[in-house]
Amino acid sequence: MTTPIHISEFRRAIGPAHVLIEDADKQGYLVEWRDKFQGTTEVVLRPGSPQEVAKCVKIAARHGLKVVPQAGNTGLVGGQIPREDRREIVISVNRLNKIRHVDSKGYTISVDGGVKLQQLQEAAEEADRLFPLALASQGSCIISGNIATNAGGTAVLSYGNTRDLVLGLEVVMANGEIWHGMRALRKDNTGYDLKQLFIGSEGTLGIITGACLKLLPRPCAQNVALCGVDSPEQALSLFAIAKKHAGPMLTAFEIMPRLGMRFSVKHQDGLSRPLAQEHNWYVVLELSAGSPSVDLEALTEAMFGEAFEAEALEDAVLAQNGKQAADIWRLRHGMSEVQKFEGGSIKHDISVSVNKVPAFLREALAAVEALVPGCRPVPFGHMGDGNLHFNITQPEGADKQAFLARWDEVNEVVHAIVARYDGSISAEHGIGVLKRDLMAAVKSPVELEMMRAVKRALDPDNLFNPDRILRADRL
Amino acid sequence: MTTPIHISEFRRAIGPAHVLIEDADKQGYLVEWRDKFQGTTEVVLRPGSPQEVAKCVKIAARHGLKVVPQAGNTGLVGGQIPREDRREIVISVNRLNKIRHVDSKGYTISVDGGVKLQQLQEAAEEADRLFPLALASQGSCIISGNIATNAGGTAVLSYGNTRDLVLGLEVVMANGEIWHGMRALRKDNTGYDLKQLFIGSEGTLGIITGACLKLLPRPCAQNVALCGVDSPEQALSLFAIAKKHAGPMLTAFEIMPRLGMRFSVKHQDGLSRPLAQEHNWYVVLELSAGSPSVDLEALTEAMFGEAFEAEALEDAVLAQNGKQAADIWRLRHGMSEVQKFEGGSIKHDISVSVNKVPAFLREALAAVEALVPGCRPVPFGHMGDGNLHFNITQPEGADKQAFLARWDEVNEVVHAIVARYDGSISAEHGIGVLKRDLMAAVKSPVELEMMRAVKRALDPDNLFNPDRILRADRL
Repeated sequence: MTTPIHISEFRRAIGPAHVLIEDADKQGYLVEWRDKFQGTTEVVLRPGSPQEVAKCVKIAARHGLKVVPQAGNTGLVGGQIPREDRREIVISVNRLNKIRHVDSKGYTISVDGGVKLQQLQEAAEEADRLFPLALASQGSCIISGNIATNAGGTAVLSYGNTRDLVLGLEVVMANGEIWHGMRALRKDNTGYDLKQLFIGSEGTLGIITGACLKLLPRPCAQNVALCGVDSPEQALSLFAIAKKHAGPMLTAFEIMPRLGMRFSVKHQDGLSRPLAQEHNWYVVLELSAGSPSVDLEALTEAMFGEAFEAEALEDAVLAQNGKQAADIWRLRHGMSEVQKFEGGSIKHDISVSVNKVPAFLREALAAVEALVPGCRPVPFGHMGDGNLHFNITQPEGADKQAFLARWDEVNEVVHAIVARYDGSISAEHGIGVLKRDLMAAVKSPVELEMMRAVKRALDPDNLFNPDRILRADRL
Repeated sequence: MTTPIHISEFRRAIGPAHVLIEDADKQGYLVEWRDKFQGTTEVVLRPGSPQEVAKCVKIAARHGLKVVPQAGNTGLVGGQIPREDRREIVISVNRLNKIRHVDSKGYTISVDGGVKLQQLQEAAEEADRLFPLALASQGSCIISGNIATNAGGTAVLSYGNTRDLVLGLEVVMANGEIWHGMRALRKDNTGYDLKQLFIGSEGTLGIITGACLKLLPRPCAQNVALCGVDSPEQALSLFAIAKKHAGPMLTAFEIMPRLGMRFSVKHQDGLSRPLAQEHNWYVVLELSAGSPSVDLEALTEAMFGEAFEAEALEDAVLAQNGKQAADIWRLRHGMSEVQKFEGGSIKHDISVSVNKVPAFLREALAAVEALVPGCRPVPFGHMGDGNLHFNITQPEGADKQAFLARWDEVNEVVHAIVARYDGSISAEHGIGVLKRDLMAAVKSPVELEMMRAVKRALDPDNLFNPDRILRADRL
């Protein structure tokens, strides 16, 4: 077999070692970690510079190929996996892995697009600064993917989503040009803020090859507590009191149900229930002192004092050391992982206004329990942001495939309730392939047409990540 | 004279009382407050609902008119004033002035687009919340204008620009459709984040008729200090120490030069110099306690203790009551106003990374003093954000017009230095008409073409604010 001309061109452009065509070499780029999405592709490209990315994009366009940009391959909605039925190639940014510049006085960091989140966090820490984005996948996810999906995580409550941390971007456009937008400015009102287009666009508008990000002061002290509460209503009261006492120093407010706690203790090694009694719901609450002059102990005591007085919780335990704090976080971080030991799980990633969380939960729980008798809901997540991973574990002893076959049906019921609460059907995971048609069903024609207009404007030939977010045949 | 058909249509659409065609009625919409921009128009429309705005847009489009959206008419770059040489009509949103909904538990507020900033601040305060955007013009500016220009102000350091405060928007599009994007969600990754397009687009992409905004906890206590420093370098050291001690509780860090302080004391009633000696530079420093458990006195003392020890300031005075705090802020807020008593002033609104402020100032001051011997620079502003209003007052006794005639020449020299520092030539005021050609000169062709593509995508007939930001003849 002769080598196709485009493969030869890619090899000349970025070096043969970085043009992967053998199955064994490509494998890691084609399977999503949960095995939900699997793809095939003729070639995976690993360019070593923004200029090489641009060359690859031009060659691909010239040969009528489509480009799937890939970062850490940790996405959950199929955005990063090439489809079997198309001429889609993968451009990975994982060789662009340098920290370019840390400006500790200016509280900024400039990095290549392929830097791992954890590498970035560590570079910030070395400069006595905090890069606050925190995700379960931080050891493997890559910053350009975090930016392209506007990643959320557990620190959004105080520090915002990824979008709020981006100052500048460097992007390879669909026409193969490089946009050098690596600004390190806090204020810049010179025309349209173009970086916003790429943040959260899931690789459909450009390939992010560099980013300038905000850094923050490192917290001077932290307290992590696990609280037992009777109901989401009580959790909401606790949230109000915590917010009143800690303001921006309330850096996490996560919720999980009794069943989730049971799963977490049962299926993770070395963890036990930190509270004496069982509670219907649990809250992981984190306080971070933003100043050495903050007496975090006094703050914590005053907050819990008022909370107990107001009956805004049933019980609480404060981590006494780093190990205990880490264990409390493990109980929470394990929540997604442990569900798989209990069979199939139908998942949602929804958000509503924080004060509507209790009513939403009441209604949605009743609806899924009526729809699938015996199902075991494990809704958990970022209550302080109104973002819940409304996951439903199969009934005990039920057939896994039969349960999972009801995925769409369950989604429909839950998302109908989300719609009535003016909520979001994808709070932090994005749209990708998985929710593309769901999104089309809940957005207005005006909004969908605006999205299509933006896509056509920046990627007129639909080169990047076709059929993700927006259907190719409706562009 | 017969009434033109479009005027009759406008009258039917929104009621005759709100179709202003008499000069006396239109006057307030045609002159910018500093008199720098004056316009004429056939008609000013004051629709009373988003639907009426949409009707006006459709009628205007059908008759080949162009639309200048106007909010509080406080913009500084000519974006909101109709041009004399075109068929531009004004659509004012100032009748859309209702607070729609305050959700104190969810920390959000939904308002009509025509609500005044101060009205919004007061509504937040009534709910024991803070809407942190703070501008000198807050008594007259209007929120949709703040959003359309991504307004900055004195509270950006801790709370961000207007962009960071917007959760959802309602926008009338160029095709006359209404986009209902009034979401109150902290997290929503369902497709492109379209609201970002309108924030900072200066009325060129749509008319903002409603907004859902973030609220924050009100500070529990505040300390305002005036510090005397020898140099911008010393101010930068002070900034680092203040940030280390106060973190996010450092809510303002503003700088002004000796001459500015002299002007401010001389030309404002009832103010005196709060520090015994004169200093080369002054810093207004504000600390806001984010929690009742923060001992702000201890924090302030620890911060100044370290600052004096590290020789990061020469002297400081702490406001002992609200009156003294207000007086310190008046010294700073008067800075723009008082310059006009000293003759003509050539202005810039630049930003660089905060740690580059001292070097930028040294270089830019030397350059303008060489260019215009005897000129009196009064650079002041939001040092903590790297944003300076680099204003140059004319030499004493010089001819005002002759001095102002050198505006472009001075701009060119200053902006060339800004470019070398990777800075912005419009940090918070925007582009409008005033800086349109300046922007075109400093942006890359890739970036300009991207902006044009966005404009063509959302406003293909160039209906909204033509020739602002982007030249109409280059679309």
